[in-house]
Amino acid sequence: MKMIDLNCDCGESWGSYVIGNDAAMLDIVTSANIACGFHGGDPLVLHRTLRLAKERGVNAGAHPSFLDPWGFGRRRIEVDSLADLEKIIMYQLAAFCGMAATLGVKVSHVKAHGALSNMAATDFDLSLALCRGVKAIDRDLVFFTSPGDETEKAIDELGLAKAIEIFADRAYDESGGLMARKRPGAVIHDADTAAKRIIGFLEDQAITTVDGRRIPTLIDTICVHGDNPHGVEIASKLRSALEQAGWTVAPLAAPARSGD
Amino acid sequence: MKMIDLNCDCGESWGSYVIGNDAAMLDIVTSANIACGFHGGDPLVLHRTLRLAKERGVNAGAHPSFLDPWGFGRRRIEVDSLADLEKIIMYQLAAFCGMAATLGVKVSHVKAHGALSNMAATDFDLSLALCRGVKAIDRDLVFFTSPGDETEKAIDELGLAKAIEIFADRAYDESGGLMARKRPGAVIHDADTAAKRIIGFLEDQAITTVDGRRIPTLIDTICVHGDNPHGVEIASKLRSALEQAGWTVAPLAAPARSGD
Amino acid sequence: MKMIDLNCDCGESWGSYVIGNDAAMLDIVTSANIACGFHGGDPLVLHRTLRLAKERGVNAGAHPSFLDPWGFGRRRIEVDSLADLEKIIMYQLAAFCGMAATLGVKVSHVKAHGALSNMAATDFDLSLALCRGVKAIDRDLVFFTSPGDETEKAIDELGLAKAIEIFADRAYDESGGLMARKRPGAVIHDADTAAKRIIGFLEDQAITTVDGRRIPTLIDTICVHGDNPHGVEIASKLRSALEQAGWTVAPLAAPARSGD
Amino acid sequence: MKMIDLNCDCGESWGSYVIGNDAAMLDIVTSANIACGFHGGDPLVLHRTLRLAKERGVNAGAHPSFLDPWGFGRRRIEVDSLADLEKIIMYQLAAFCGMAATLGVKVSHVKAHGALSNMAATDFDLSLALCRGVKAIDRDLVFFTSPGDETEKAIDELGLAKAIEIFADRAYDESGGLMARKRPGAVIHDADTAAKRIIGFLEDQAITTVDGRRIPTLIDTICVHGDNPHGVEIASKLRSALEQAGWTVAPLAAPARSGD
Repeated sequence: MKMIDLNCDCGESWGSYVIGNDAAMLDIVTSANIACGFHGGDPLVLHRTLRLAKERGVNAGAHPSFLDPWGFGRRRIEVDSLADLEKIIMYQLAAFCGMAATLGVKVSHVKAHGALSNMAATDFDLSLALCRGVKAIDRDLVFFTSPGDETEKAIDELGLAKAIEIFADRAYDESGGLMARKRPGAVIHDADTAAKRIIGFLEDQAITTVDGRRIPTLIDTICVHGDNPHGVEIASKLRSALEQAGWTVAPLAAPARSGD
Repeated sequence: MKMIDLNCDCGESWGSYVIGNDAAMLDIVTSANIACGFHGGDPLVLHRTLRLAKERGVNAGAHPSFLDPWGFGRRRIEVDSLADLEKIIMYQLAAFCGMAATLGVKVSHVKAHGALSNMAATDFDLSLALCRGVKAIDRDLVFFTSPGDETEKAIDELGLAKAIEIFADRAYDESGGLMARKRPGAVIHDADTAAKRIIGFLEDQAITTVDGRRIPTLIDTICVHGDNPHGVEIASKLRSALEQAGWTVAPLAAPARSGD
Repeated sequence: MKMIDLNCDCGESWGSYVIGNDAAMLDIVTSANIACGFHGGDPLVLHRTLRLAKERGVNAGAHPSFLDPWGFGRRRIEVDSLADLEKIIMYQLAAFCGMAATLGVKVSHVKAHGALSNMAATDFDLSLALCRGVKAIDRDLVFFTSPGDETEKAIDELGLAKAIEIFADRAYDESGGLMARKRPGAVIHDADTAAKRIIGFLEDQAITTVDGRRIPTLIDTICVHGDNPHGVEIASKLRSALEQAGWTVAPLAAPARSGD
Repeated sequence: MKMIDLNCDCGESWGSYVIGNDAAMLDIVTSANIACGFHGGDPLVLHRTLRLAKERGVNAGAHPSFLDPWGFGRRRIEVDSLADLEKIIMYQLAAFCGMAATLGVKVSHVKAHGALSNMAATDFDLSLALCRGVKAIDRDLVFFTSPGDETEKAIDELGLAKAIEIFADRAYDESGGLMARKRPGAVIHDADTAAKRIIGFLEDQAITTVDGRRIPTLIDTICVHGDNPHGVEIASKLRSALEQAGWTVAPLAAPARSGD
């Protein structure tokens, strides 16, 4: 059976400020990457989103970030000390997992947000610090990562479980990484195009870069975005297209840790 | 044997901003009330202070507050929803206990900070929400409370453990509550006066209010303050005076829960 | 000629977080109350909103508040010192007026936001501090105030200019103040009802309280809200209804100061 | 007559958090670089520090920074848009100059703080955005800059006035820039060494780099630091040493703009 997980970022509202339509997105995806309070999310939003995920049977994952609410975690911020970063991650994961436990929710996965994720993707030491912070709180979390980047290597180094993630609405650059948003064609706005492309990747067990290179990879989960006006529509169409193509959209089972 | 616990607030520095002298205070007290990041404290400070407490053999407790770094948690802020307050407490306790666990530290107690504590002292429903947030994360924490206030009643109602706390450097008003800082005589600045007064309370098993009324009470722990220039000196003198008067200054043992 | 000003709060977005539809609202109203960065707004949003107001020929006013981005300035926060509040207002007004000057915009008015406004309405001393902060930066600003409240008295006391404001979508309680949002009927959601009610008040030169009492008052400006889904529609219908009833919707001319 | 200005950063306290000893430092220096609220400083601290500067006859200057209170403005943060940076500077300068005006204080100068200053020093376009933000609010401010860096070029390009600044307690690297704090010898902790070195630079009208290279430069002002325990002592000794060496320590007169 062909199975695939669909994930989205959510729980990023903050106080009176609303981002995205979490309730609608959690009807579509099977894994939720929920903000931990540092770029978005607050204790009320976190609790509400965890409960939503539980009610929908969606896997709940932590989505830690830099402490940067104004920049929404998207600005690259100098990291003075990797040991410090480790604690910043630990705090977020601890708050997240402890809050989830009060709802009887077992946290399934973790995915780094925004600039933290982008910086880690090309920096092994930063990735190690990130993974150490996660491992200190829960060594069984599945770490979402792009294929072949430095974060994947750090995950393997520490013996954490991983899930390889591709993006539904983003092009891959010559190096196989996510194309910078500023480059033309970096973001795919059309739902049909996105769906066709993703199904091609899945069938081929590979991604294709902007210059046509084929990079073979396992694919465990597909990221869709809900923080733009058409997010819900794109995600919904993608899910339908996947199902029509014979894929079962379902949460990831807890994989074995790579060190086991 | 006459035993007494000595506690202080600590871990309240934030980024480049330093409050108090935690290292010196943790050489004197036996219980540390450590900020959780909402009025002071950040993940680095929290980790460092937990490690200090562990190294000194000092009991580590959580010191949650309103989300108010600028006001240092000392401003009364309207609480719209008690259910919301509960989650704000849960988040802080979860972050705190999870971080402590990474260091092998068992969290011993909890004490509300600043305006949150003052508002709860006279508001049973607020106290209940506060206690529910704590209980959701760790039902074995000992809650520090002033004798006879609404928080004590809520602790009892929920069957949590409690420790009765008096303040070394504060006068008690006509109602038996802490005298407002603005009133003359509210804060005791002289170490010898504070020591003499506290030893009197301990021997008498009662506190005395500003108008001379005697209120009998158990006394489990004495709070000293380290966030003023003379804090370390006062705490040190108080500890010596207690020991000379035959008291053993030692961390509280984990008491039985009142519901047991 | 029957003339009336229409005002709305705007410029309350912050970083990636968007509140309301400022561009649409500024096509309808004639006065904009623009956030100064303390409950919403940031330097980029403030600049953009000032430019929008200038392009639309809309009067630009400052909308200062408590420093409370998470609570959106809606939580009552204890004010320790009125002298401190004065400086908090001065800072916001200074930033606002200085930024406006770079765009060649003359700031026309000021209106307190949220909890600050509500607390001032019933507290003369707080209102005085608020007005002093405003006056220190620009003594020619017109202060928007509800009829007959403590803020109006403070405005008069300091000789500032004022404009009497009523709310299109809010009921007035027995005391003539805004009915608390939690009471049933406090918020009027239907555009036609709101329009009819407001035109009645204008024709009658009086407001009517929830218990039917008539309170005569001058009416200079009507507040509409753009931070809810139907805000734009309600504002648009109200403007049309006013025009059909023979009212000219136009910005306030700078009134003489009451002390002149 | 040999005259020199002595400047220090101040007004960086925030809420309950105290940084440095402003009152003592303002008895020693002749120019104060006062935080604007984005890395430190709040409206109360800003007002108090401006008043202190006025009372001491010290020149009051603005010390803008990135919006980064937790990082104290010392972390390099990605700047997405130079146009955005310009507004962030404008907001701070507007708040600062407006607040100063209420006290009858004429703002004399501006100096960028921390990471913003470091990034601008090697980035002409960033420096231009910074200078444009300043110029939009007050074109007569004197911009403090290190000799020969990109910020100086941008100042000249826009025709702003400048003052060349050297640091009393910092070594210069091979490129003539400030040596990174992490390198050994980057910070000079001994007051006598610092004084001797600075007087040498003044007499020689040049700075000397760590590898012994001599770089001729005008020197208008010397920066001393007050945010470390020995700051006051070092500053005081430096001032005495300068006076003994025949230098008059005095505020800068307003220089002509370079474009005049």
